[in-house]
Amino acid sequence: MHVPSCPPQDDVLVIGGGIIGLVTAWRAAQRGLRTAVVDPSPGAGAAHVAAGMLAAVTELQYGEQTLLELNLASARSYPTFAEELTEATGLDLGYRPCGTLAVALDADDRAAMRELHAFQLTLGLASEWISGRDCRRLEPMLAPGVRGGLRVDGDHQVDPRRLATALLRACERAGVVFHRDSAERVTVDGDRVRGAVLRDGTALAAEQTVLAAGSRSGTVAGLPEHVLPPVRPVKGQVLRLRIPRAYAPFLSRTVRGVVRGGHVYLVPRENGELVVGATSEELGWDTEVTAGGVYELLRDAHDLVPGITELPLAEALAGLRPGSPDNAPLLGPTALPGLLLATGHHRNGVLLTPITGDAMAEALTTGELPPYARPFTPARFATAPQEQAV
Amino acid sequence: MHVPSCPPQDDVLVIGGGIIGLVTAWRAAQRGLRTAVVDPSPGAGAAHVAAGMLAAVTELQYGEQTLLELNLASARSYPTFAEELTEATGLDLGYRPCGTLAVALDADDRAAMRELHAFQLTLGLASEWISGRDCRRLEPMLAPGVRGGLRVDGDHQVDPRRLATALLRACERAGVVFHRDSAERVTVDGDRVRGAVLRDGTALAAEQTVLAAGSRSGTVAGLPEHVLPPVRPVKGQVLRLRIPRAYAPFLSRTVRGVVRGGHVYLVPRENGELVVGATSEELGWDTEVTAGGVYELLRDAHDLVPGITELPLAEALAGLRPGSPDNAPLLGPTALPGLLLATGHHRNGVLLTPITGDAMAEALTTGELPPYARPFTPARFATAPQEQAV
Repeated sequence: MHVPSCPPQDDVLVIGGGIIGLVTAWRAAQRGLRTAVVDPSPGAGAAHVAAGMLAAVTELQYGEQTLLELNLASARSYPTFAEELTEATGLDLGYRPCGTLAVALDADDRAAMRELHAFQLTLGLASEWISGRDCRRLEPMLAPGVRGGLRVDGDHQVDPRRLATALLRACERAGVVFHRDSAERVTVDGDRVRGAVLRDGTALAAEQTVLAAGSRSGTVAGLPEHVLPPVRPVKGQVLRLRIPRAYAPFLSRTVRGVVRGGHVYLVPRENGELVVGATSEELGWDTEVTAGGVYELLRDAHDLVPGITELPLAEALAGLRPGSPDNAPLLGPTALPGLLLATGHHRNGVLLTPITGDAMAEALTTGELPPYARPFTPARFATAPQEQAV
Repeated sequence: MHVPSCPPQDDVLVIGGGIIGLVTAWRAAQRGLRTAVVDPSPGAGAAHVAAGMLAAVTELQYGEQTLLELNLASARSYPTFAEELTEATGLDLGYRPCGTLAVALDADDRAAMRELHAFQLTLGLASEWISGRDCRRLEPMLAPGVRGGLRVDGDHQVDPRRLATALLRACERAGVVFHRDSAERVTVDGDRVRGAVLRDGTALAAEQTVLAAGSRSGTVAGLPEHVLPPVRPVKGQVLRLRIPRAYAPFLSRTVRGVVRGGHVYLVPRENGELVVGATSEELGWDTEVTAGGVYELLRDAHDLVPGITELPLAEALAGLRPGSPDNAPLLGPTALPGLLLATGHHRNGVLLTPITGDAMAEALTTGELPPYARPFTPARFATAPQEQAV
């Protein structure tokens, strides 16, 4: 039987309206591509929970130097990106070039942090070791026991909820069409992805389809196994405290530390919010706020900054990071024509939003990732289709 | 000028629709008195936050033997009271005769608890000292470090939110009239209270007015200083965890303990809720949930029952107990004719609800408190009006 070929409705269909999907859609639309986004509630997702640290240097891990380059490049572009997005929407992102102080509480923490510092210096990163006394001079609310820390004046913050709201408006203003529903499955016709079918039955056709469904990107129906991204949910619990005027500013920069081996950070926002995060739990799709998660965050934050006990606790939330095997994102074209990925950003989704938008727009218009994004091609995890059967 | 005397609209006007005001109104209406309640949202108030322990024995404090008698009498009447209220409304109160286990974590706790036990025995109370091993046999989730505890099989629990809802319905069915507004001031005419004026300007006249406004009872306008009850707000923060079916029953009775000098309790409800309480803070009208309050509760509860970390945290709330100088309620007629009090129940509002209803109904119909309630007359705090001027 001959199926008449209809012209696709869109140039680009983005599955997932979190910050990564939205920035991809915005940048694609700016390049003249007819773009649509599928999401039951665009602008929600992990960004609603995230703290918004732009911590390329203080989040550095051994073995992640390739990712570091991408993180640094995205961090450098943040001021311009924020300005452009604000200009396009009239919305402020809460971008705050406040710097970060990473502190050590005991001798072990200090030893580990000095090693990290040496590693940072070999990579040419701007990071200064300062004494405990100097830490407290910068941030008087720090615990008396702080033994020293790394002052990183280049690690900033943005408000992820405002970022999501602004991206949503930028998309709308750039003519992006929103389908407020879930993608039931991706449509594969012959050897090519042709779009997606929504839960309500609507079939959407597109020249190129971008899978940007965060932690759920690996579960989308319709795709052959070998192109499904190896993305898993990594649960994070986060608290929002409020800094009453009498205590303001409380902290003047992001403060983070290792407490009993666990990472904790406190991000003070201009609006008087203090975000405390985050747990990192491999529990599948569970998004419950637990007594243990909240306890651990409060205990560790209290060890770093005892005065938090006085602050009202406004909110406790859990979200799912899209974790990938090497903690780096999967960007650009896949082995299946017509299908691109923009997912797996793990802890760095907010930080990598600007550069993801640029890289994806480039891939969507030229068919190729720009050089700086090529190490993040999904091909690095590729298994040949026939291997699946072995 | 001659003011024509109008017949009062009601026999009894109750200011405050918390559980104490409601039980007073219900019992008054049952005795044939035309009764009205003034409250912007009846059934809310401190009961919405309270854990609902009926802990006459385990809450015993030195020097509170008089209050103990009242507490025990009310505890004894709870089964009949709950049955009667359920019969009147069709609503279950979550009354659960589950007993209480009060445990000690360290040698100091154990010494203090053994002293309390000796005191309980001199008063003839049913309380059994059991070993740490026996504690864990009763409640396997207890921390390995528990050194022993008091098994009090007569200290039970009720669900205060269900209690409030049932009392509200019982009042409605008994013909109590509700004015959903705040009392702007009490009306004093000559030497007698005549009712109250609402915030919307409505004047309500009544033969007798009962002030049952919880922690706000001392702030009501219109009353001369010397009859205002010496009641202050005592802030309590409480958490509600959820026991997933896989962990049920988790605890089979109320577990409480002293941890680093602070009291903490865990009340497992039949509906799968686990209430963890409570802080006790003298902070005026502040009802903020704070990082410190939640931290302290989770830390202390975790020390008693480490497994709470796995439980979802459903709710964190703060409420205000109506504290009185001797931690006992103020019940019955005041020095000002037409004005009665039913307030100052502090930690024992839920426990004392049945007996408060009985005592107040007696006072409203006969003009005198029954013998068991007489020690709680407001007169015990009375200062003569002229002394105010000295």
